[in-house]
Amino acid sequence: MEHPAAATPETGPAAVARAAAEADDAYRRGALDLLGVIAYGALAAFDRLSEDARLAPTLPDKLHMARMAARQVSHVDQVRDRLAQFDLDVVVAMRPFHEAFNGFHDHTRPKDWLEGLVKAYVGDGIAADFYREVAAFVDADTRALVHEVLADEVPGEGASGEGVPVEGGHADFVVARIRDAIAADARVAGRLALWSRRLVGEALSQAHRVAAEREALTSLLTGTVDRPGRDLAAVSRLFSRLTENHTRRMAALGLQA
Amino acid sequence: MEHPAAATPETGPAAVARAAAEADDAYRRGALDLLGVIAYGALAAFDRLSEDARLAPTLPDKLHMARMAARQVSHVDQVRDRLAQFDLDVVVAMRPFHEAFNGFHDHTRPKDWLEGLVKAYVGDGIAADFYREVAAFVDADTRALVHEVLADEVPGEGASGEGVPVEGGHADFVVARIRDAIAADARVAGRLALWSRRLVGEALSQAHRVAAEREALTSLLTGTVDRPGRDLAAVSRLFSRLTENHTRRMAALGLQA
Repeated sequence: MEHPAAATPETGPAAVARAAAEADDAYRRGALDLLGVIAYGALAAFDRLSEDARLAPTLPDKLHMARMAARQVSHVDQVRDRLAQFDLDVVVAMRPFHEAFNGFHDHTRPKDWLEGLVKAYVGDGIAADFYREVAAFVDADTRALVHEVLADEVPGEGASGEGVPVEGGHADFVVARIRDAIAADARVAGRLALWSRRLVGEALSQAHRVAAEREALTSLLTGTVDRPGRDLAAVSRLFSRLTENHTRRMAALGLQA
Repeated sequence: MEHPAAATPETGPAAVARAAAEADDAYRRGALDLLGVIAYGALAAFDRLSEDARLAPTLPDKLHMARMAARQVSHVDQVRDRLAQFDLDVVVAMRPFHEAFNGFHDHTRPKDWLEGLVKAYVGDGIAADFYREVAAFVDADTRALVHEVLADEVPGEGASGEGVPVEGGHADFVVARIRDAIAADARVAGRLALWSRRLVGEALSQAHRVAAEREALTSLLTGTVDRPGRDLAAVSRLFSRLTENHTRRMAALGLQA
């Protein structure tokens, strides 16, 4: 359908309505991209955690990692159910993000159990922080789902049977094991700090790739003319927050960021 | 504690009570062994299915395998909850079965996606049949749990949202993919039939090892003086049933047993 005035700026009520519809559509695409990236991130995390489970030095460690891996699959299914409400197949929604995640994982293959643990902690921490920031700009239902998925729990490990939040579950698990390993051999700290810096570098490089390719996702953060997002100064403060949180996590592990 | 008459058969009421208590204890140990073998089998299956997920040729296939792997973790947790009622840690209950399962998996590493699918179908089929047979001789609650764990479902794949039983879910998934592969290249059938025979041979060899080492488990089937089980003819009929079911599954795949 062509509009006679398409080449010049439009100002009438129809043009305003059309611009609003386009903005809504862009907004919706951004939310769907957010769900797609979370789903594929969870599936890739399943792959990684199940590989970590294989490297686990003890059976309880293996079981813990297997549980964490299984949780990722339920995250994919939660997102799938939400996407179905938009008539979007989760497989289709995930597709744009294969390359970035696979690139990240191919370039950061843990050599051993400890590197796997640090990777899960550092990588998932940054990703979760980022998703939470982006989720501030999507509709309330999508935002609630994102927070639900990220408020990760390890079911059955708590005395209450209610599950333990990851901050007191998987994160504590990783912190305890890394600290024990450093206590047993101080040289481990240097190696793992180096490894973390590589992980962060690779994660940011892939994040930039996604940002460049998925304008809908990026514009959730930066905003559009019709819909306020964050100005560039605010985006740069966001990256400062990500870095601060990362530094805090590294300190918890007993590592220098 | 020594009994003066320990060297000769006892006949008094105290002796009968003692024999009954010992039989109860043996019976209980058999049930715990059954739960332990199921739990470790599920954890080993998680390992295998998550590796299969990595080999999956498409994203929907990968998601399906990841879901199957995640289900295995929930099986371990169901068994763990039951064992906790007997004050037995699932890690302790699983320990006697590491060697047999690890031996089986080490000796039957799938070379590709199709071999992985056949392994899951053939191996889990025989194991599930066997667990069901043994479960006939344990207490009702344990039996109910075993049947619940084996009545495997793929949640979220059914239109009803109630989940699809594996016979209409994972089994159908495997059958469809193997039949498609044979349709595309008839030589696949010969290779996979050979592979299945190797799987069954290795499974039976490891099953004999477990039977020899875990008397409590075996005596559930064969019975003891105080508790009727099956006579040897019945046990041999059991193995015939396992073989018949296996042959039926092979036929479903389009393979010669």
